[in-house]
Amino acid sequence: MPSYTAPTKDLQFVLHDVLGIAQADIPGYDELDRDTTAAILEEAGKISEQVLAPLNPVGDEQGCTLENGVVRTPEGFKDAYDQMRAGGWMGLDADPEFGGQGMPYVMNCATGEMFVSANMAFNMYHGLTHGAYATIHTHGSEDLKATYLPNMVEGRWSGTMNLTEPQCGTDLGLIRTKAEPQDDGSYRITGSKIWISAGEHDLSENIIHLVLAKIPGGPEGVKGISLFIVPKFMVKDDGSLGDRNAVSCGGLEKKMGIHGNATCVMNYDGATGFLVGEAHKGMRAMFTMMNEARLGVGLQGYAQGAVAYENALGFARERLQGRDVTGAKNPDGPADPIIVHPDVRRNLMMQKSFVEGARAFCLWGATLIDTAHRKQDAEAEGLISLLTPVIKGFLTDKGFETTVLAQQTLGGSGFTREWGLEQFVRDARITMIYEGTNGVQSLDLVGRKLPADGGKAIMAFFELVKTFCKDNADDPVLGDDFIAPLKAASKDLQAAGMYFMAEGMKSPNNALSGSYDFLHLFGHVCLGLMWARIAKAAQARLDAGDGDTDFLNAKIATGRFYMARQLPATALHLTRIQSGGDTVMALDATSF
Amino acid sequence: MPSYTAPTKDLQFVLHDVLGIAQADIPGYDELDRDTTAAILEEAGKISEQVLAPLNPVGDEQGCTLENGVVRTPEGFKDAYDQMRAGGWMGLDADPEFGGQGMPYVMNCATGEMFVSANMAFNMYHGLTHGAYATIHTHGSEDLKATYLPNMVEGRWSGTMNLTEPQCGTDLGLIRTKAEPQDDGSYRITGSKIWISAGEHDLSENIIHLVLAKIPGGPEGVKGISLFIVPKFMVKDDGSLGDRNAVSCGGLEKKMGIHGNATCVMNYDGATGFLVGEAHKGMRAMFTMMNEARLGVGLQGYAQGAVAYENALGFARERLQGRDVTGAKNPDGPADPIIVHPDVRRNLMMQKSFVEGARAFCLWGATLIDTAHRKQDAEAEGLISLLTPVIKGFLTDKGFETTVLAQQTLGGSGFTREWGLEQFVRDARITMIYEGTNGVQSLDLVGRKLPADGGKAIMAFFELVKTFCKDNADDPVLGDDFIAPLKAASKDLQAAGMYFMAEGMKSPNNALSGSYDFLHLFGHVCLGLMWARIAKAAQARLDAGDGDTDFLNAKIATGRFYMARQLPATALHLTRIQSGGDTVMALDATSF
Repeated sequence: MPSYTAPTKDLQFVLHDVLGIAQADIPGYDELDRDTTAAILEEAGKISEQVLAPLNPVGDEQGCTLENGVVRTPEGFKDAYDQMRAGGWMGLDADPEFGGQGMPYVMNCATGEMFVSANMAFNMYHGLTHGAYATIHTHGSEDLKATYLPNMVEGRWSGTMNLTEPQCGTDLGLIRTKAEPQDDGSYRITGSKIWISAGEHDLSENIIHLVLAKIPGGPEGVKGISLFIVPKFMVKDDGSLGDRNAVSCGGLEKKMGIHGNATCVMNYDGATGFLVGEAHKGMRAMFTMMNEARLGVGLQGYAQGAVAYENALGFARERLQGRDVTGAKNPDGPADPIIVHPDVRRNLMMQKSFVEGARAFCLWGATLIDTAHRKQDAEAEGLISLLTPVIKGFLTDKGFETTVLAQQTLGGSGFTREWGLEQFVRDARITMIYEGTNGVQSLDLVGRKLPADGGKAIMAFFELVKTFCKDNADDPVLGDDFIAPLKAASKDLQAAGMYFMAEGMKSPNNALSGSYDFLHLFGHVCLGLMWARIAKAAQARLDAGDGDTDFLNAKIATGRFYMARQLPATALHLTRIQSGGDTVMALDATSF
Repeated sequence: MPSYTAPTKDLQFVLHDVLGIAQADIPGYDELDRDTTAAILEEAGKISEQVLAPLNPVGDEQGCTLENGVVRTPEGFKDAYDQMRAGGWMGLDADPEFGGQGMPYVMNCATGEMFVSANMAFNMYHGLTHGAYATIHTHGSEDLKATYLPNMVEGRWSGTMNLTEPQCGTDLGLIRTKAEPQDDGSYRITGSKIWISAGEHDLSENIIHLVLAKIPGGPEGVKGISLFIVPKFMVKDDGSLGDRNAVSCGGLEKKMGIHGNATCVMNYDGATGFLVGEAHKGMRAMFTMMNEARLGVGLQGYAQGAVAYENALGFARERLQGRDVTGAKNPDGPADPIIVHPDVRRNLMMQKSFVEGARAFCLWGATLIDTAHRKQDAEAEGLISLLTPVIKGFLTDKGFETTVLAQQTLGGSGFTREWGLEQFVRDARITMIYEGTNGVQSLDLVGRKLPADGGKAIMAFFELVKTFCKDNADDPVLGDDFIAPLKAASKDLQAAGMYFMAEGMKSPNNALSGSYDFLHLFGHVCLGLMWARIAKAAQARLDAGDGDTDFLNAKIATGRFYMARQLPATALHLTRIQSGGDTVMALDATSF
């Protein structure tokens, strides 16, 4: 069985040394001193290690079962769910008005990484509730909020998001689910939704479905979509549960991974629904929640990479095969541990340098969300809007790649169920697909986010990189090893941006053929910036003669690896982008 | 359920137009005219499409079961096996002296691609028999050959390779299985082997295990390993089956993919074995078979990519989502097929340009094996020895990547079992691991193959590329789009070779830290060369006004994509190689 050790030390380092949260001028951050965050992370780490992680292979092996309309989750999930509820983890950053603890979102992410590494399929049950909570909180009427939020914040009720239908995934304009207005102000919802995570299960007392549907007579396409709450059980005026609503689970999807999470076909047979926000403005309501949801998926990607890396490292230290070419390191044993071999090292360093850089990137993103929400800061809002597709797309592509690399470290053992690596690969794979495939993320980035507000956000990003480079160009630790490569990479990103500006109007295919490479180019620059900031923070602690020298030196060494071996990928991405769309679009659809 | 259409047309094009096999001066190739190979490919294609492919999801779903020592294969496997036997496919390239058809190995590969694309787990049963056959054929005594080969060639008996033990995978010097000499000249084999593909099953009447073991008193480490035949049932003098030998299946491995193939723990409890070749020379006997076995795994890698691509393409043509940015292509429908979108195109072209280039590369390798074996050609032997780790490592890494890309084309559907893409991903994953992990391939390449014979083989490869470039530099089709990028890539490969020469002696870690990138750099140059040759062949047919214009033009267009978008990766690999081993090896094993 795979192991899991919560990375609380590294999370503390990122939160305090790299991001300096306790000193940040963001409402609520002043309470996040080192001791407070340490206590929270320790507790979250404990439940992750002791309760969630042991259930991860169980959930994979047993999966969910549907019998007579009832979905049974794997053994132990209900108990774990109750423990998570009792610990208050489900309402960590929720509004105190509805029973939440009101913590900043960054703490939700820092603890969330551990929950996801330990058991991604399990964590999705309350993760989706959080998304539904946030949507209702932002767009629902006072009445809806009062009716639904307290129980959702507490985890007594859970939530779902119902978008996809068989004929429509990305293109939501094709939705057919109908919502007919009733005399009492409610709606009658009829239609079928697919791929609904946590659509039906036995963990919570009620399930609050958020459903996209069309009110007959409304505008065509995406402009005619509205958002509805459809509870599994109707809620009586006194808050107690009433009749079963006409919504049911019609089937469970068999899938590659996240077996512990029930992926449901949901049938709405004239179910009673309640409009959230304005009629026909459902897409807007869904999209305001997207930054957070997509950041959460990016987090899932690197969190799977993180636990996979931990297990690869453990294996590489224990497994004895061959001898160090520079001389035996374990002369009394039959062979040396494989961590002595350069190619095993290369593989481990690829994993480590991604995971730790990604952790910083994701948590930085979370602080931007806090800044945007808690300070109504438009610049932070613009920046996180721009970075969201990068966080989602890059961290899930590379997170998946990291699980594959980790699996490779184990050789044949990596392919067997027993060691658990193959589950991380299968589970991580979905993160590249849901909440918008990574191809869709790249279109969002290039087609929408980049040109938004006249390119204000990307210019702010470049300014940020430029300032950092200028401030640290002469630093003896940062200068040559970090700042020089970061500048080169950032120049590649600018050149790609220029290419899109020049080509975008006259040939959209030229720009869009480069969108995926642009997303990766951007991701590398972000991780390069993160590693430069990490190295600076580590050196500051070393200079202060404070902290774990070995840990801090390893940070700088790992950063050097990223800058030397991973960041240069920006040049390849730029070459591809600049090669344009001709070779991509040359064939007729019939000539493939 | 996924579809499979045998790519007979493209195989014919590669065999005849690109490789010119009918005109090649290799014994046996004169019989391979277009009509003959077409007939063979059609037949192999038919059984692949109609018999093997429908069983692929069945094998994945049912897997193998072990009850009372007996392994049951999935429903339909036995019948398919009998059909493959009846068709003579198992002895296609086997020695006619033992009942084979004596065809060149290249035809074994061309038909094999289809068998593997259709059902990789199934194909391993007779694939392993082929490996065991070849080993006995080359190293066994006349007596052993007469006893075992005819039934193996016919498929009545199957074969296995037993190398791995719990404490030893790559490092075979750690083997513990014992072989004690008996008075009758046989040996008593005792030990346990793991991960034995097709170690026990219900498809054949007898199973012939090839087992690595140590004769007590022999040299230490790999120099004391001998190779033995251990039949499941003893063979009587009249050729009929006798007593059950003391070998049994102790368990089946649960694994990520290839569920239809039984991966066994094999226990040898004083089983009777017969020495193959000389005592203590077992490693040599195994290694002579490695080129072929590893090429076969490279083939598995791209063959999984090929079938995955076919299904991605089919989906992209059918699935309606969104509109072409340059104007609706399906104005009467609710949306355009997703193949109109540039990023979907990019993804499909990545798949297509890899699969078709890999097909040519692998079959070219097979002709080199034929040249080496059938003409005793030392230069061809040297070249294929050098290219083998590249074929194995590059084509499986990229083959797996291609299945992942194809899965991505399907979005959410790619993650579900129903569409079958996720099975291709899971099945392809093993190819990067078995027959030596790809990391081990890269060490073989840089540490052994590159410096062998004073670098004779790599110099021959460079000469070959140089001559091709010189001959075609002024060609209007090839010059700018193919020759120029091929020259640049080849220069990167040379620079990497120079780096290893300069660093290899003084710092082995510097060289070995770059081995994996070198393998990929080399693979790209090979596929670049293949695409230049493919384009040349296509243009020649076009100039002759002969053949399917659309097909031939698509070849040139796909080649241009490879040269513009994939080949430039060589520069990144060179940068990484030249960054040396310092950042890779900086951390203590305890500081990770």
